[in-house]
Formats: sequence, C-alpha cells, structure tokens
Amino acid sequence: VVSTGPVTRVQAPEVVRLGIEVLRAARTPLDNALIQVQQLVEADLCGRPSHGMQRLPTLVARIANGVLDPRAAPVVEVRAPSMILIDGRSGLGPLAAHAAVDELLRAAGEAGIAIATIRGAGHLGMLAPYVERLASEGLVGIGLTTSEALVHPAGGRVALIGTNPIAIGIPAEPHPFVLDMSTAAISAGEVMAHADRGQPLRDGCAVDGEGRPTNDPAAALEGAISPFGGPKGYGLGLGIELVVALLTDTGVGTDVRGTLDTDRLSTKGDVFIAIHPDRLGGSAAGERLTGYLDSLRISPPAPGFERVLIPGDRMREERRRRGAEGIAYPAAVWRRLVELREQPQGAGRV
Amino acid sequence: VVSTGPVTRVQAPEVVRLGIEVLRAARTPLDNALIQVQQLVEADLCGRPSHGMQRLPTLVARIANGVLDPRAAPVVEVRAPSMILIDGRSGLGPLAAHAAVDELLRAAGEAGIAIATIRGAGHLGMLAPYVERLASEGLVGIGLTTSEALVHPAGGRVALIGTNPIAIGIPAEPHPFVLDMSTAAISAGEVMAHADRGQPLRDGCAVDGEGRPTNDPAAALEGAISPFGGPKGYGLGLGIELVVALLTDTGVGTDVRGTLDTDRLSTKGDVFIAIHPDRLGGSAAGERLTGYLDSLRISPPAPGFERVLIPGDRMREERRRRGAEGIAYPAAVWRRLVELREQPQGAGRV
Repeated sequence: VVSTGPVTRVQAPEVVRLGIEVLRAARTPLDNALIQVQQLVEADLCGRPSHGMQRLPTLVARIANGVLDPRAAPVVEVRAPSMILIDGRSGLGPLAAHAAVDELLRAAGEAGIAIATIRGAGHLGMLAPYVERLASEGLVGIGLTTSEALVHPAGGRVALIGTNPIAIGIPAEPHPFVLDMSTAAISAGEVMAHADRGQPLRDGCAVDGEGRPTNDPAAALEGAISPFGGPKGYGLGLGIELVVALLTDTGVGTDVRGTLDTDRLSTKGDVFIAIHPDRLGGSAAGERLTGYLDSLRISPPAPGFERVLIPGDRMREERRRRGAEGIAYPAAVWRRLVELREQPQGAGRV
Repeated sequence: VVSTGPVTRVQAPEVVRLGIEVLRAARTPLDNALIQVQQLVEADLCGRPSHGMQRLPTLVARIANGVLDPRAAPVVEVRAPSMILIDGRSGLGPLAAHAAVDELLRAAGEAGIAIATIRGAGHLGMLAPYVERLASEGLVGIGLTTSEALVHPAGGRVALIGTNPIAIGIPAEPHPFVLDMSTAAISAGEVMAHADRGQPLRDGCAVDGEGRPTNDPAAALEGAISPFGGPKGYGLGLGIELVVALLTDTGVGTDVRGTLDTDRLSTKGDVFIAIHPDRLGGSAAGERLTGYLDSLRISPPAPGFERVLIPGDRMREERRRRGAEGIAYPAAVWRRLVELREQPQGAGRV
C-alpha cells in the first residue's frame, strides 16, 4: 500500500484479501466472498471504479440490514432446453450471473440459442466479465440489466428510466470483442465526482430540475441524467427496461430498487442470451472477423485521435497496467475500506 | 394523384397498384410483388422515405441485372427447435423476413426463445413491421441487419461500418413498443437531400475527407457518416456488424454489398430473435409495462418539447395521417415511378 497525497495505490491481491475479510466478517461464506470481491476488483482493474470496491460499503450495509443474504445460493430452473430461470434469493449478484453463464455454456451448445433470466439477485457489477466468459468459449453473449431510474426520456425531464447497460461479447482472436456500456450519457458517480471537484459536465450529459440542458453538476443532481445519443439512446435504454422487466417479471421505472440503497430488496432484473455460431454455420466467419477488427485498428485516426480502438481493447490494457502497477484508489475510498475491516460491528453504517 | 408544385400526393392503394405493375413487368410473381411493395409503401406511410418507394428503381435495375431474382422463394431450414436458417436465394428481402417471422412465431412458442438467420436476401426495408408482427403476437422481437459501410469508427475517419439498424418490438397495450433505429447519426439519403437543398447538417452527423467534423453535406459525401452517440453508438453498430456477420456467415465492412448498388449480389445478413414472455413467466409484467409507458407519455416535457414520445408512437401517427391524406412524394420521385411503369423495357436504367 503506497499513499501519495490523495491517492492510495494497492496491488490487486491485497485488495481481494481485504474485500474477503470484510465480507467474511459480514457472515459471507468464503466461496461467495471470493466471487463477489473478484468482480468488484475486476472493475477497478478495468478502470470502472463506479462498479468497483467503492460499492463494498453498500453491500455490507445491505447485508447488515437484511436485504442482501450473503449465504443465499441462486436457484436454477431449466424450464426448457433453451430457457433458464434463476432466482437470486436476495443473494450476491455475481453468484447468480455466473450460474447463468454456467448454464448458458451448456444450453447454447445444445439448443443453438439459450436465454437465462435472473430476478432477486444483487448488483451484478460490470457485465463485461460475464459476456467475456461466453465469448471466450466461442459463444456470442448478450447481457441486459435494469437499474434505478436516473435517466429522463428524450424530450422529458423526469428521471424515469434506468441507466440500463447492454453488453455484447463476440469470439475473436487474439481476444474477444467485449462491449459493456450504460445507455446513460454519464454515470451518477461521475456527476457526483464532477460536483466534488467543481468541474463542469460535458454537453448533453444532464438536465437541471426544469429540464434544461446543464453543464453544472450540482444542477444535474437536482435534475436528471440524459440518455446517451439523444432519442436513439433513449429508445435503446427504454427497450432494455421493458425487455428485462417483461422477461424477468421485475420492476420498471421508479419501482426498480436495491442496487444503490441499503435498505430495499432488489427489484431489478438481468437477462443473458448466448448463441452458438458453429451450430448456426457461422464458424467460417470467425477468421474474417479477426481480420476486419484489425483493419479497423490500423485504419487512419481522425485528427486529435491517436488510433482507432475496438470495444474491450482499452479495458484489457487498463487491466494489464493496473495488474502490474496496482490500483490507485482515492485515499478516502481506501480508508473507508480499511475501516470496514477494522470495525465490522459498525458495518451497517454507510 | 394531386401535384402541387414540387410535391405529388398519392393515396397508398394507388401507390401499391403502381408498384405491383412495375414489379409484374419485371417478371415478379403477383404474391411476391405484393409483399415487396407493401413493405416499401409502409415505410412511406411511416415517414421513412429512405426505405420507401424511392428504392423501387434500384430493385428493378437489380432484377434486370440478374443480381435479384424476383421469383426466388426463400429456403427455410429448421436446424433445431430454436434455430432457423434461411437462404434468401438472391430473392426479395421481405419474403425472407416474413418467412423468418412465420417460423419464429411457431418456434418461440415451443422453445421459449428462437433465432432466425438470413443470408442471400435482398434489402428487408424497415425492420419495424417484422418486430411489430412478433410483438403483436405476444413475443419480444429483436431484429439486426448489416448494410454497406458508410459509418466511420469513433476516433477514425474511414467508412468501415454499416449503418446497421436494430429493431426491438415488445408487446404492450394498446399497441406494441416498436423501436427501429439505425446506428448511424444520419442516413446517406438525408445527407444527399441536405446537399441538394444546400442545407447544413446538424453537429455530429459526419466528418469530411480528413476526418474533421463537418456540417457541410458536400464535404460529408467526401468523408463518412458518424455513428450516433459517439463511442457508444460506434460500439453498438460494430457489435451488430460482428454478430450478424458471424451468425449468418455474410460480409463485414466494405465487403457488404447489394442493397444500394444495382449490380452486386447481396452479401449482407439479417438476424431475428423472438422470445416468449409467457413461457418465461413474465406475463404478469405485461400490465405494468403498459402503465409504465403511459406514465412516460404523461410525464412533464422538457422546455421546447410538447410531450414525451414512446418509440413507435410517431410512426403510428404518421401512418394514420398519411393513410387518410395520402403520401406526399417529391414530384421527381413520383415521376420516376410512373416512368418505370410506362417504360418497363428501360427498367434496367437507374
């Protein structure tokens, strides 16, 4: 652990150890703690701190408040060769998501396409690792999740739609294509970070309480986050909200709870779809895909850009770099995590 | 037919009649002509002229040049209960797409989820009618298509990615949710229309030949169209390119041909996925969805907006209005269609 000014740099294995100790103190079985913490640390390694260890205090408080059961095992029902229904039993999200991937690896190989729906699970974290697992095994993987309503509809001003991410994993060499993106223009965490630093938001990120576009993060906190890409991003985010709610029989809009708060049961849903290209006769295309992605990477960049990136490339580079150099946490975040370990009895406070 | 200045207003049934006569003269069986023309007129009714009757001259030229076979019937292979492979046999796109929907309606009811891949079919037209058919029968429908490379990657400058649309249909009352959007910031047809009118493009629509953002439509024609929504829209469009190419074993990037030109076989692909909410236990969510969509519609609009729209709402209103008032074609477009009917021997010219 190296603290320099406002930043504390920690090697990933040490972060994992701390996370496991914290969750163990909160009555979490070791296996479950490991899966949960690895998912959090993965986000920090990839440069997505909003899905990283800074969420651990919320998880611990949710356990203390009885709305997250760290001992629960997801219940898997295979309703048909290509239909898997998972009840998270108010347990840790990554357990349910990895159970979905396990089942899909088997089911998509048999049926060509399979779907797993998840309800009642905690926050999954980044979707990337799940679709990456599917893609690494030769499958096309698609992940969709609902989340708390923070985004206004295009032409509207009230936060009624989740930041609903979509993830797509596609087999390719030397590593899969991995897209994992929220349908919001910015995350709530980034808005708060901008407010803390007194830094203006990019255009198009948010509206104020009257629905006017704003660059002021404080005004944005009174208003709502904008969908990315205007009406099209709105349509996509709303489509994800509806598909997930309908297929998992979970909440919509402001009824979605349980990933940001510390006292509500999870009412969001998650959907994964896996498709087997070889069963569909598409295996011959695999090599062309790799060549095509390389042709994008070496295509001339626009002025002001160094090179063209493929989704997943930067994530992979960040992971490698932080794996070697350690993860730089804001000192306050790391202090909070150390406190959590040292005062487990106070774990309920957030 | 009412011509006022540069616009000719025609009732939909008369447009259909003209379209059928044109295709009949180009050796198209009546049933096939009807399905193709209905799909084109539907786009004009919905206010999407880029997918409407203005494409008919290209179709006729493609038939004359032997790269589109108007008599071909798609060949359907049901490889597994949830896997349908369709070979369009270089025939009309809407025949293959409706065959996919027919099969999916049956297959998704049995398997819960099913996928249909299409290769070797002509341009499908708007995806909306296909996913709307699935949604009207109670299914979640997803449609993905590749198309000619007109879009540059985020941070790049060369057109290497299709305008790759995604469509999502979801059952709801009183009518389904229907999203049908390209992943490009603007269509090529709109860029050309702006160039004709000497009208500047909105910000973010295109780059010039050097990769610099431009509002000049003439410069855009020398450059490339931008993805909608920056890096996220780029990631989504690229994801669609890869998924469709891999699952249908069709072209990627600049290898995709056969929807805009008149002399190349179709090398694009199409994918439809249908999911049965009732089989997954999601039927109870249907009523909540309808209430949620209504809560969005009545939510307060942002300044400068009259109301909040749900994807599909405007399309439906436009269809109703033009169904009553007739379709307003640019006089030159309508004249070209009438010429096509009157000089079928010259149909090969475009």
